[in-house]
Amino acid sequence: MTLSRSVGVEAGVDRSRQAVESSDRPMPIPDTAHRHLLDLDLLSAEEIRSLLQSATGMSDVLSRSVRKTPALRGKTVITLFFEASTRTRVSFEQAGKVLGADVINVTASASSVTKGESLLNTVRTLQAMKVDVLVMRHPHSGAPYFVARHVDASVVNAGDGTHAHPTQALLDLYTIQRRLGDVAGRKVAVIGDILYSRVARSNLWGLRKLGAEVTVFGPRTLLPSTFRPGEKVPQGQDFEGVRVAKRIEEAIDGADVVMMLRIQQERQSAGHLPSLREYSREFGLSRQRLRLAKPDALVMHPGPMNEGVEIASDVAHGLQSVVEEQVSNGVAVRMAVLYALAARSSRGR
Amino acid sequence: MTLSRSVGVEAGVDRSRQAVESSDRPMPIPDTAHRHLLDLDLLSAEEIRSLLQSATGMSDVLSRSVRKTPALRGKTVITLFFEASTRTRVSFEQAGKVLGADVINVTASASSVTKGESLLNTVRTLQAMKVDVLVMRHPHSGAPYFVARHVDASVVNAGDGTHAHPTQALLDLYTIQRRLGDVAGRKVAVIGDILYSRVARSNLWGLRKLGAEVTVFGPRTLLPSTFRPGEKVPQGQDFEGVRVAKRIEEAIDGADVVMMLRIQQERQSAGHLPSLREYSREFGLSRQRLRLAKPDALVMHPGPMNEGVEIASDVAHGLQSVVEEQVSNGVAVRMAVLYALAARSSRGR
Amino acid sequence: MTLSRSVGVEAGVDRSRQAVESSDRPMPIPDTAHRHLLDLDLLSAEEIRSLLQSATGMSDVLSRSVRKTPALRGKTVITLFFEASTRTRVSFEQAGKVLGADVINVTASASSVTKGESLLNTVRTLQAMKVDVLVMRHPHSGAPYFVARHVDASVVNAGDGTHAHPTQALLDLYTIQRRLGDVAGRKVAVIGDILYSRVARSNLWGLRKLGAEVTVFGPRTLLPSTFRPGEKVPQGQDFEGVRVAKRIEEAIDGADVVMMLRIQQERQSAGHLPSLREYSREFGLSRQRLRLAKPDALVMHPGPMNEGVEIASDVAHGLQSVVEEQVSNGVAVRMAVLYALAARSSRGR
Repeated sequence: MTLSRSVGVEAGVDRSRQAVESSDRPMPIPDTAHRHLLDLDLLSAEEIRSLLQSATGMSDVLSRSVRKTPALRGKTVITLFFEASTRTRVSFEQAGKVLGADVINVTASASSVTKGESLLNTVRTLQAMKVDVLVMRHPHSGAPYFVARHVDASVVNAGDGTHAHPTQALLDLYTIQRRLGDVAGRKVAVIGDILYSRVARSNLWGLRKLGAEVTVFGPRTLLPSTFRPGEKVPQGQDFEGVRVAKRIEEAIDGADVVMMLRIQQERQSAGHLPSLREYSREFGLSRQRLRLAKPDALVMHPGPMNEGVEIASDVAHGLQSVVEEQVSNGVAVRMAVLYALAARSSRGR
Repeated sequence: MTLSRSVGVEAGVDRSRQAVESSDRPMPIPDTAHRHLLDLDLLSAEEIRSLLQSATGMSDVLSRSVRKTPALRGKTVITLFFEASTRTRVSFEQAGKVLGADVINVTASASSVTKGESLLNTVRTLQAMKVDVLVMRHPHSGAPYFVARHVDASVVNAGDGTHAHPTQALLDLYTIQRRLGDVAGRKVAVIGDILYSRVARSNLWGLRKLGAEVTVFGPRTLLPSTFRPGEKVPQGQDFEGVRVAKRIEEAIDGADVVMMLRIQQERQSAGHLPSLREYSREFGLSRQRLRLAKPDALVMHPGPMNEGVEIASDVAHGLQSVVEEQVSNGVAVRMAVLYALAARSSRGR
Repeated sequence: MTLSRSVGVEAGVDRSRQAVESSDRPMPIPDTAHRHLLDLDLLSAEEIRSLLQSATGMSDVLSRSVRKTPALRGKTVITLFFEASTRTRVSFEQAGKVLGADVINVTASASSVTKGESLLNTVRTLQAMKVDVLVMRHPHSGAPYFVARHVDASVVNAGDGTHAHPTQALLDLYTIQRRLGDVAGRKVAVIGDILYSRVARSNLWGLRKLGAEVTVFGPRTLLPSTFRPGEKVPQGQDFEGVRVAKRIEEAIDGADVVMMLRIQQERQSAGHLPSLREYSREFGLSRQRLRLAKPDALVMHPGPMNEGVEIASDVAHGLQSVVEEQVSNGVAVRMAVLYALAARSSRGR
């Protein structure tokens, strides 16, 4: 987390300026002091709530018959993806276009960029073409932080290696809030590959900041080494206060939300995982196990799902599943993020 | 055709609602009861005529110096192509953009989707991002029908395996109508790989519905098994009334339209085809053979052409060729289809 | 240059028509008689100056908070790239979108197009979909000239083989003019792979037309065979008046501008190049060598840079480097080019 802290400092700007609202921009701009969205540990609880509040307005726009606002007209959003991801790229593209921005897609392979031109020169070149927001996915943890230190454009981390995926966490928080009214005090179980999941890591920051009671469970080989099953993460450590369950039943028991993580089947060849059948038996969410949670508990998954592995098909598509809502909410949350950053940039940087 | 029939039933909605026209949509919306465009066998002759009528207005828009209407402003069209096709994708993208829609392109390989995530989850995810029309090409016959049964968005079949390509057939009908005034009573020869051509199959439905006299000819191995050379397809069978010629000269003789099909060179390795030289000699359209047709007969081809194989270069680019007009008309017809489906969806679904 | 001359003749139109300005187009349209932009040898000095003048207005648009003009609303720009180039494609895409045009991207491999369909049929098909400007990059020198002779759409050469890259040269001229006030009389050193560099070739035409004093230097194997070190290119030959230096110091000495070319590392395997280390020592721009130029001399590079090979990192990112300005100016110049061609086309062609 050293990386992100250092950026947090750099990103500091006069917050009072954020309160001003220009007349041609009727939507309230989320109150965030940051130029970039790199991970949720850099945002205060208040800033997260402000983004979720803005997302509510964006959901309204999305539910209209004509889904279009001119909020980001004349702004340019570039999606720069060094890893393939139709789902996330389309979500950002839709978010940008509904806001009236011009969206330009760039896909690149991390290797080819390294060969011909440095990552830094690539993003500086894109920035020189007048980009307001650079939405970046990269297989290397920390890459967007490095970029953010060297460009004027706003950087949104759309997933960096095993590190962070803040818009996924924001959309998860938003989904919980819309469904359950508030995140604070909710019991949330996060189950699966905690160690290598950028979704889990960003969610842990966000859930704790908003006051949820978080319990995690997963294969021992896929838990951070500082996590002790049966204990809470002690004060002063990252993810302080998160409880580590000993058994899956213990994690699910009485939960308001059961958040399953995608298992990366590549991990198996690395010896971190048992067979998929064993994985399903020990770490998967079945209908039976779900009965341990509260009756109306939400079932969440960031997608794409490995049905029959980490989640049974009947649970994945069952009445408690909010998986498709998560996707819909993702567009609203990304609209809020793009709007916060791009509208901010136009008021003088 | 079982697949499509079942969808036809599901797609039924209150047709009277279609007649209503909202005030901010000055263009008349084609009168179709369908939520999807899967193949022409599902449309009535009247519905096809209504789409062609709408395409005429779209051609007018395309001939303006400023080619833009706000008809689909705030609507999202996703092109989801599991097979590469610059030609068809660009045509739909241009159609959507001229209508003011946001167009998002997604390419995927059928195999990768199967591996990581089911086709159904992929399209449900896209739909959850608020998509109005999903334009889909897939190597498997029937795939868009499967998808249509499970999503709320409108599905346009942009080519499914060897089954159907309805917008190609519509643009062919539109081209004939613009050139010859009416499709009814016109003698149309369709020559080539009838069995595996989605273009041919959709055209046979459309041409028969609009009252054309259709004669087909092709290698015996590339004709449907129910087709008997020298006879008409009997009543009650698919493509009823289509005449099957014994020789190419018989098919072309007196034709108003000669529609050549693209030969899939892959078929050759499967033993369904003689050498390309032999194919050209027996099944290709030469200038000499074209003289058997009416003096002003139209030469059509869905493209891309194998010049020198199914069509001689001088015929392909000759005075009677309307191949480029077909392409231009394709944009107009696809505008009509997108408009019919997306405008329909916004009036409450 | 035979190719381009023949196109020059074909492109001739009534220039007086260009002076007329329609009321809904407040920006002055650059005064060019050409339908296409193929290379700078086809433009007069006056036409080049008119484009640079227009680019100045475009830079103003780009520096606004809302970067959008409706100048090309309802126009379609297709980028057709047979070679990968994120940098140039994004620059054109941004230029088109800021002008309000619809931009459609097509990537193709030169081989696949040759196989299934001729290049000509491909571009005729795109044109039939109502394209105003076709921005084309192709690995074969001359390909855009061939295309331009057969389509009605305007063709912009975005790089053809080793031949020409006119918008790169225009942005270089524009950068020099903005920085130094005027191109005429400026001493410009162009260093590197002159023979195979489309950037160098287009720049030589443009720099000479605008009256710069040009000196080139590079490995003997990478100089045109007509170039004699220590002499000027004689009258009547291509690039007449360009001086060919014997040593790099001689080229840089007293220069106002030092333009380094990207070394194509592929050339090395062909035996045209020494090792990269030797290349750097003999032909690279170091801080020390830069001191031979005028104190405020501009350092230019078309990018992407091979830092440590043709240019030292401290020079590439030093105070005299205008590499990122070149990129920014590229968007403005391409806006001017697209505007000149597309606005022209709408006044009747």
